[in-house]
Amino acid sequence: MKRSGRRPGNQDTRASILEAARQAFAEKGFDKASIRAIAGDAGVDPALVHHYFGTKEKLFLAAMNAPINPAELIPQALSGPREQAGERLVRLVLSVWDSPAGAAAVAMFRSALSNEWTARLLREFVVTQVLRRAIGELISDPEQASLRSSLVASQIAGLAVARYVLKVEPLASADPELIAAMIGPNVQRYLDGPLP
Amino acid sequence: MKRSGRRPGNQDTRASILEAARQAFAEKGFDKASIRAIAGDAGVDPALVHHYFGTKEKLFLAAMNAPINPAELIPQALSGPREQAGERLVRLVLSVWDSPAGAAAVAMFRSALSNEWTARLLREFVVTQVLRRAIGELISDPEQASLRSSLVASQIAGLAVARYVLKVEPLASADPELIAAMIGPNVQRYLDGPLP
Repeated sequence: MKRSGRRPGNQDTRASILEAARQAFAEKGFDKASIRAIAGDAGVDPALVHHYFGTKEKLFLAAMNAPINPAELIPQALSGPREQAGERLVRLVLSVWDSPAGAAAVAMFRSALSNEWTARLLREFVVTQVLRRAIGELISDPEQASLRSSLVASQIAGLAVARYVLKVEPLASADPELIAAMIGPNVQRYLDGPLP
Repeated sequence: MKRSGRRPGNQDTRASILEAARQAFAEKGFDKASIRAIAGDAGVDPALVHHYFGTKEKLFLAAMNAPINPAELIPQALSGPREQAGERLVRLVLSVWDSPAGAAAVAMFRSALSNEWTARLLREFVVTQVLRRAIGELISDPEQASLRSSLVASQIAGLAVARYVLKVEPLASADPELIAAMIGPNVQRYLDGPLP
């Protein structure tokens, strides 16, 4: 039996699921969109959605054409010695955006900045699901996790805008290690420094 | 003699000048676009451009539909006691974006994030012409002005993205004074803190 590299039937099914997923995430947000409803809209069994994409998180990343999985990378960057967590987070952002995957990351970010639904999803997924949880495990007062994540998000989003979208020099072409040393301590203050 | 509120002839001339200005700024950037060339493209005398719009800076702001003049406001915010310059800059950004002019500021910023030429102009005008000069007067080593402005730009742009575009809570609805107290010290470090 010869396996073909292209599987048109499967590709069509995958495409239908992704299309239904995009619509569901856009209309209901990450939390309220369900695999069952997405499967229904795509006219397939929910088990098939799980078979193709795994978790809802992974289906979401596939629907967004996300080049990486922040839910794996961000907690990794924040674990380890706490005093350098800010620098590690900056280094992670730069390593993804400077890599070949960066073009897709820039595209997704630009889309979030001009489309309400991508903005909502970026906010819900990256900030609420991923960053807030990871920071909650890092700090002593979990009630501050939301505030601290939104502050971290402001610096990380601004780094991305200044370096990759507006291309403000010398930040746009500065060495990643230098940037981590310059911006890391500011992210660190948002992570665990004193706040008013 | 009765003056009419609407002056159709003048409005047409103004519109032609603004259209020519937008094209010139988009093609040549802020520095290289000249009032003389813009007047030529609009088919009017350069003196008329000055008469309607004043300086090139003001023509630029009119062409961009800018609701405020950053070239006046940013140096104002940075003057005064140096230790609170960061807080004052954050307060200025919030006071503009939270005001009725904020909708236009958000629109212009969104446009900069999706259009190459608006991005270039925002970078050249706000960062290079305005922020860099104002910071150059604030710090002791003027050679660091570019680096420090790009870092300040990263935090200010990120605050705008997180609060007004992505609407990340609690930053999106937090009190401006609280935000100034939280983010101000980080901007302050970029302005005059030790850098690697």
